[in-house]
Amino acid sequence: MVDKLDGEARALALAGLPDWTTIGEPDGIRRRFAFTDFNEAFGFMTRVALLADKADHHPEWSNVYNRVDITLTTHDAGGLSQRDIAMATAIDALLAAR
Amino acid sequence: MVDKLDGEARALALAGLPDWTTIGEPDGIRRRFAFTDFNEAFGFMTRVALLADKADHHPEWSNVYNRVDITLTTHDAGGLSQRDIAMATAIDALLAAR
Repeated sequence: MVDKLDGEARALALAGLPDWTTIGEPDGIRRRFAFTDFNEAFGFMTRVALLADKADHHPEWSNVYNRVDITLTTHDAGGLSQRDIAMATAIDALLAAR
Repeated sequence: MVDKLDGEARALALAGLPDWTTIGEPDGIRRRFAFTDFNEAFGFMTRVALLADKADHHPEWSNVYNRVDITLTTHDAGGLSQRDIAMATAIDALLAAR
């Protein structure tokens, strides 16, 4: 079980994720990624899928050609938790490493 | 360039895809797939991605844990075309082969 982030802990965590937008329904964060083409977009999705399955924390996501939209929320916590922050940080690191 | 399917050709094509639902916006077809878990769902998505990139005809799709929603439409044709029918048939064949 993991707690929903609130107050200062939430603000601090989000400050480290400037490319992610907070959303209300569900309470979580979202980021849109654009790649050269489908091949590159799905390659990225595959890397995220491996991270997600290893962490047992899965995104809600969609893909249209070169675009990938990822939403992270923690159903067990009823909103944004440290698990989402960790996953978003790991996803950002994939891109930084390219 | 590929033509949008209309009339009898459209009805005949759709009759072969009983698990797909027609949608209006965009004009196309949609099917929801449910798997045991994320691992199985993403394995399926990977097989669809390979089909799609080979055919250069890409789905609009989303995934939440064990669920995959796939929409097929042909932007160049302004709606449902034979390319969508072929892709849906190929996707159905993946499942039939399991």
